[in-house]
Amino acid sequence: MADFVAEQINKLATEDEDFVDPWTVTGKSETGIDYEKLIKKFGSSKIDEELIQRFEKVTGKKAHHFLRRGIFFSHRDLHTILTLHENGKKFYLYTGRGPSSESMHIGHMIPFMFTKWLQDVFNVPLIIQLTDDEKVLWRDLKIEDARKMAYNNAKDIIAVGFDVENTFIFNDLDFIGQCPAFYQNMVRIQKCVTFNQVKGIFGFGDSDVIGKITFPSVEAAPAFSTSFPFIFDNKVVPCLVPCAIDQDPYFRMTRDVAARLKMPKPALIHSTFLPALQGAQQKMSASDPNASIFLNDSPKQIKTKINKFAFSGGQATVDEHRLKGGNTDVDISFKYLTFFLEDDDRLAEIKQEYESGVMLTGELKREAVEIISPWIQAYQQRRAKVTDEVVESFFKIRPIKL
Amino acid sequence: MADFVAEQINKLATEDEDFVDPWTVTGKSETGIDYEKLIKKFGSSKIDEELIQRFEKVTGKKAHHFLRRGIFFSHRDLHTILTLHENGKKFYLYTGRGPSSESMHIGHMIPFMFTKWLQDVFNVPLIIQLTDDEKVLWRDLKIEDARKMAYNNAKDIIAVGFDVENTFIFNDLDFIGQCPAFYQNMVRIQKCVTFNQVKGIFGFGDSDVIGKITFPSVEAAPAFSTSFPFIFDNKVVPCLVPCAIDQDPYFRMTRDVAARLKMPKPALIHSTFLPALQGAQQKMSASDPNASIFLNDSPKQIKTKINKFAFSGGQATVDEHRLKGGNTDVDISFKYLTFFLEDDDRLAEIKQEYESGVMLTGELKREAVEIISPWIQAYQQRRAKVTDEVVESFFKIRPIKL
Repeated sequence: MADFVAEQINKLATEDEDFVDPWTVTGKSETGIDYEKLIKKFGSSKIDEELIQRFEKVTGKKAHHFLRRGIFFSHRDLHTILTLHENGKKFYLYTGRGPSSESMHIGHMIPFMFTKWLQDVFNVPLIIQLTDDEKVLWRDLKIEDARKMAYNNAKDIIAVGFDVENTFIFNDLDFIGQCPAFYQNMVRIQKCVTFNQVKGIFGFGDSDVIGKITFPSVEAAPAFSTSFPFIFDNKVVPCLVPCAIDQDPYFRMTRDVAARLKMPKPALIHSTFLPALQGAQQKMSASDPNASIFLNDSPKQIKTKINKFAFSGGQATVDEHRLKGGNTDVDISFKYLTFFLEDDDRLAEIKQEYESGVMLTGELKREAVEIISPWIQAYQQRRAKVTDEVVESFFKIRPIKL
Repeated sequence: MADFVAEQINKLATEDEDFVDPWTVTGKSETGIDYEKLIKKFGSSKIDEELIQRFEKVTGKKAHHFLRRGIFFSHRDLHTILTLHENGKKFYLYTGRGPSSESMHIGHMIPFMFTKWLQDVFNVPLIIQLTDDEKVLWRDLKIEDARKMAYNNAKDIIAVGFDVENTFIFNDLDFIGQCPAFYQNMVRIQKCVTFNQVKGIFGFGDSDVIGKITFPSVEAAPAFSTSFPFIFDNKVVPCLVPCAIDQDPYFRMTRDVAARLKMPKPALIHSTFLPALQGAQQKMSASDPNASIFLNDSPKQIKTKINKFAFSGGQATVDEHRLKGGNTDVDISFKYLTFFLEDDDRLAEIKQEYESGVMLTGELKREAVEIISPWIQAYQQRRAKVTDEVVESFFKIRPIKL
């Protein structure tokens, strides 16, 4: 299975098609990654209308617009999680982030916004891993700097609105050395996975450092509740992982390992990527400031960036645009509205107006600015309240509400 | 360098010569491993008369008979350690053991006996690592069982006579999850070593599990004082590792890593192996009860084993033996006397008498029994006093005397 996936990824790369792995995401088309194809390649399942309906029925809540609009588009075993919930059984959520020195951007928020919503809907514990060790291994970065980045990124994440009552956040470089059960699970996982397998799944080679080769065990361990005895009291509790689709290789591996360890396989729910300002071939990336809207950008910066850089689906002249209409499949301002404008009716209206040529590109950009800018301002207000004391309360090794 | 060593080892194996790595030790000759050759192959230095004299001068103590008789025969940077001591600077000792379920045998005691002596001579702290994670990764063994084995083996080790005042003992599966600095050093090490390198040094292959591939970082970490902030307060203190020569590959790697991390390279002092009862081609092995004298054997068992199994250098008949004399180069009872009989004059006498045919094989065996049996009885008396409370005092994460 793993080798098959790697083969497919290599085939994709050489065939000049989309490429998606934990380190590289590149689409070949102006409309972005072909996510339908990715589902087939990765062997996950599509989130279809029927699943969304079941979701609404089981939870009694209207599906999040990320679900309704295919932003979370793929899953593994989500039905199992819904059945657990139906039967009054608990599960937990696990997600994470590889901390970076740059300020986080709005694309980073997508999985966390959705995770918060899932946590509110299901009322379950959430564990967030910050893989600062990964960053040390992959980048020219010192341990001390990676730990600081993790700490600062935690502030950005907490500002999404997580509740300290049922959320535990940790960074690997500090936490692994404080939890014997976690290291013991790492060893259990490391015993189930060969170099051949990580070579197949992640494309590691002989000249990769041994830290990279073993790192998948670190990202896998939090998917097992026994890694957190202070929370789950050594009980086996199933896990749902909301994440961007590029992290799926880690959890394909984890699911294989789970079967061998006789533990429940983590379920998954996968998001698409928020595209870069320049166009949907690239995901938003913190390393290119002109491609991203950062969480600490001012309203003026946001306005300038969208006006200046957001790739437009409009026509070359106003006359031509009025005649032919714009293309929402490639227009980045419109794509951002699908992520940040909750009102379905208003979104449909904008789509219709832009595609018919009634709405001009400048007007569409203004719509995007007027949705994103207040969202970021509200976020910044929450962020200002995240003191060191607040961070420490999330990092504290403690029982949390189950 | 690493590749060169691996090449040499492979060459040795195919050339039908001695083979020594952390998992296999086999000599081709009745006289045992050719240690002189091993020094050349591994690139270490011989402990020669000059070094022993300097050792005695610097320490003001008579060299241990393990040094005088070439049982500790090879080293790396021992001169540096002696210079440190001359200048009143501190270093620390680090040694370890891969715990096993079987009772420990007298061969296992050699590095520990010598380590205790070194500790007494230099008055320095000692750290002992029990690699229970290694055993989980290499054997069909559960985490829980490996931890128990480590705990029981610790009792056997403590009974050598270590002082809780300046000795810290830990097992990986419990300690790594209690010391963030240790895991952080593991990551630093894992970042410096590629799969190609561990392939070269340890012979790992593509079908090995990732836990084995990364394990060398776990054995390397204790060679850096910063892994133990509760002992060394984050100060950089040099390290001397007494170990059997088969562990040298780990420390060749560690020394390469040390250079990259700008940390002092660990110095090494290497022992030969105590041969199996059946002959010097094999080291004593816990998996073969008839090849080994265990620490919990009774005087009767010891007598029976030596009489029945100890390979003899004597001649076929008494008459022939009186005429030609015995061969102490291959006689296992005599070899054991070189390890356990401290009196140089008596040893020389026995050698002369046996080689001249004055002493018969049965008499030589009796000499061995009469040395080993009381040694083990004294050991067993100390072992009986090692309660759980004593073990826990050694395992406690705490400052120790520097």
